[in-house]
Amino acid sequence: MTGSAAEPVDGWVITVGDELLNGVRVDTNTAWLADRLASIGVKVVRAISVRDRQEDIRAVVAESLANADVVIVSGGLGPTEDDVTRQAIADLFDADLLRSSEVEAAVRSFFEDRGRTVSEVNLDQALVPEGFEYAVNPRGTAPGLMKRLDGRFLFILPGVPGEMKALYESWVEPVLREAHGDRPGVRRKWFRTTGIGESDLSDRIGRLDDLSPFVSVGYLPSAFGTAIYLTGSSSGGKEEDRCFAAAEERIRKGAGDYLFADSDQELPEHIADLLTTSGQTLATAESCTGGLIAGSLTDVPGASTWFLRGWVVYSNQSKEEELRVPHDLLLEHGAVSAEVARAMAEGARDAAASDYALSVTGIAGPTGGTEDKPVGLTFIGCSGPDGTVVREYHLGTMGRRYNKQRSMVNALDLLRRLITGLDPMAGGWETPG
Amino acid sequence: MTGSAAEPVDGWVITVGDELLNGVRVDTNTAWLADRLASIGVKVVRAISVRDRQEDIRAVVAESLANADVVIVSGGLGPTEDDVTRQAIADLFDADLLRSSEVEAAVRSFFEDRGRTVSEVNLDQALVPEGFEYAVNPRGTAPGLMKRLDGRFLFILPGVPGEMKALYESWVEPVLREAHGDRPGVRRKWFRTTGIGESDLSDRIGRLDDLSPFVSVGYLPSAFGTAIYLTGSSSGGKEEDRCFAAAEERIRKGAGDYLFADSDQELPEHIADLLTTSGQTLATAESCTGGLIAGSLTDVPGASTWFLRGWVVYSNQSKEEELRVPHDLLLEHGAVSAEVARAMAEGARDAAASDYALSVTGIAGPTGGTEDKPVGLTFIGCSGPDGTVVREYHLGTMGRRYNKQRSMVNALDLLRRLITGLDPMAGGWETPG
Repeated sequence: MTGSAAEPVDGWVITVGDELLNGVRVDTNTAWLADRLASIGVKVVRAISVRDRQEDIRAVVAESLANADVVIVSGGLGPTEDDVTRQAIADLFDADLLRSSEVEAAVRSFFEDRGRTVSEVNLDQALVPEGFEYAVNPRGTAPGLMKRLDGRFLFILPGVPGEMKALYESWVEPVLREAHGDRPGVRRKWFRTTGIGESDLSDRIGRLDDLSPFVSVGYLPSAFGTAIYLTGSSSGGKEEDRCFAAAEERIRKGAGDYLFADSDQELPEHIADLLTTSGQTLATAESCTGGLIAGSLTDVPGASTWFLRGWVVYSNQSKEEELRVPHDLLLEHGAVSAEVARAMAEGARDAAASDYALSVTGIAGPTGGTEDKPVGLTFIGCSGPDGTVVREYHLGTMGRRYNKQRSMVNALDLLRRLITGLDPMAGGWETPG
Repeated sequence: MTGSAAEPVDGWVITVGDELLNGVRVDTNTAWLADRLASIGVKVVRAISVRDRQEDIRAVVAESLANADVVIVSGGLGPTEDDVTRQAIADLFDADLLRSSEVEAAVRSFFEDRGRTVSEVNLDQALVPEGFEYAVNPRGTAPGLMKRLDGRFLFILPGVPGEMKALYESWVEPVLREAHGDRPGVRRKWFRTTGIGESDLSDRIGRLDDLSPFVSVGYLPSAFGTAIYLTGSSSGGKEEDRCFAAAEERIRKGAGDYLFADSDQELPEHIADLLTTSGQTLATAESCTGGLIAGSLTDVPGASTWFLRGWVVYSNQSKEEELRVPHDLLLEHGAVSAEVARAMAEGARDAAASDYALSVTGIAGPTGGTEDKPVGLTFIGCSGPDGTVVREYHLGTMGRRYNKQRSMVNALDLLRRLITGLDPMAGGWETPG
């Protein structure tokens, strides 16, 4: 346990639910809570998932209270028989469960607003262990519960992510902010790269151990490349500033033109910024990626100002009819060829009258490969104001979705390189990494 | 701890890494391991994430060995300074770290195969605690480590999911199968629904408590709807069969035509099966979903036999040029209208010469809404051999990606209903849930 004013305090996160331990659900609450807690100076040092069993919950909560300043328990507050967290907590503190009329009224109106009748089981959601504070759930029926223990805090929240987050934001965070004052949050700086794997990237950047403890570096694979993040201890000041600057310089030098953002902006948002700034437009012609490129780009709000149109041209006939790929070209070189990738990109740029057009044709697998053209062979074209570039990629047999994903990233990287005047033949992500 | 022949044995999963506790990464290894372990009769009863600190790792591993029959530790085996799991384990067992010539040779060839030079730091990956067994990593450099302790097992695996899974499948599972004999796995049965949320679905099905302990029911929101899974204790036999059958009957009756699969098959695979079986084909014309529908359908291997082509038509001009949506129709009703959705679906079906065509036009947000046409308003059309159906959906302001996702699911559900002869105006997922 820590507690001096300038240091983060220690937190434990406990998630409750059989579904977290039988393989049917990935726990996303822990990472969300850890991120939010870090931003207000609570450092999560352990996370535990336990089953819906009273004795397990009691044991883990008791252990956490002996070791942490802030304990957040999430899950097991529902109305069904397998939700036993409330009873376990009451037993741990030898507290009676008392019905709160305020929570009961909220539960009743929750059901009435939805045209449903409230049952006795639902009204049990209004039970609060004696000596606990509570907060009404704005998105559901289970209230948040809290016990203050000599400056430490135990919060009990529902497990449904939307309900948990709503209660955290409206209640837990303000309570902790008030209690902890202006405790500084973790200092963090993000960088985004694409076209290079974590180990190659860290080899290029080198170790940053000499900047410890003021700054530490982490590498994180993302859907679009490798992110780098710097984390600072909050004991810094000028020395911390100097170490962050030194780390940033080494990252910029090592990552070179693989680096596309010094923030946590992802590649589609970066492409959107580039095109919005230049007032240019884009079209996509996808075969093996099947709409994935268009889908990721149109996730960005406002995409309609620069994304003109896209085609998913699986069949040869569609490539001919939609993009005017010559029939003879398809016969001579096959659909998966540099020539067809070029014709697709140029045909899409013409048809959409866009500044740029991306094309992808490849063998995503698991079947469809031949000796000459194995699974993973992919051609990506990008046609722009200065002509058309086509590249060949060998993505291997890691799987269909993997190959679609890698093709999308390579296509976006190729476009980025062309828009920003970088060497379009550099980068390119071929081997697993 | 449990151990009699017919009962599952208890497992703990320990994941190591600062990135799991500072909010930057969601731990997916635990759920994957729990699912796989359940299938061979190892029931995970606790999962713990700890930082890259030797004292934390030692404490948690020691605690796990006092409570579980199978302990799997994942993470912290890399070559960098913050990877301390190997040393922590060696210290816990008071074991020296000895370099394995077999692992060293594997590390050397891993680097040589990739045209990279191997450093001394990389060769430290060949260190194995004395008294531990090991397995060479087929996808990376860190070997798996194992210690047998009076019938209990401690495995140490790398944290990179691909490497962890490869070592689990090739080594951990065979070792445990051999040790535990033909211990029955968990009995599990999946059902998939779409167009209905978890709470409405569970209200319709009702409680299954009377079938406990032979069968328990779980609900799980998925990207495409709500999954239901039954889990059986392995102490069953005929009574278990009877309870599973009774539960299945209630699920079928309650879920009605929201149910589309009595397996863990997802909706795109189900659509693929329907079209493959009937020999029919599909095209897509997407505005606000931006390629998401085509992308999810073409994730299914073999999609090229039934997915003919797709359009992403963001601009009015592209709707006119690609799908022959009449200019006047767009002027009169606006791009987001039932009339345009109908014209898009029919235009796509004509242009692709497909049996079915789906269209989506809507206001995904966050901006672009008006009083008449608020964010979330979405029209979905499906044109087929028996004509065209258009439906209106109100998806609200939960967010752009949420609305794209919900629109995709509603489109696939509408198509499913038309192909299988169900009421196309039933179902439909409008409100959060």
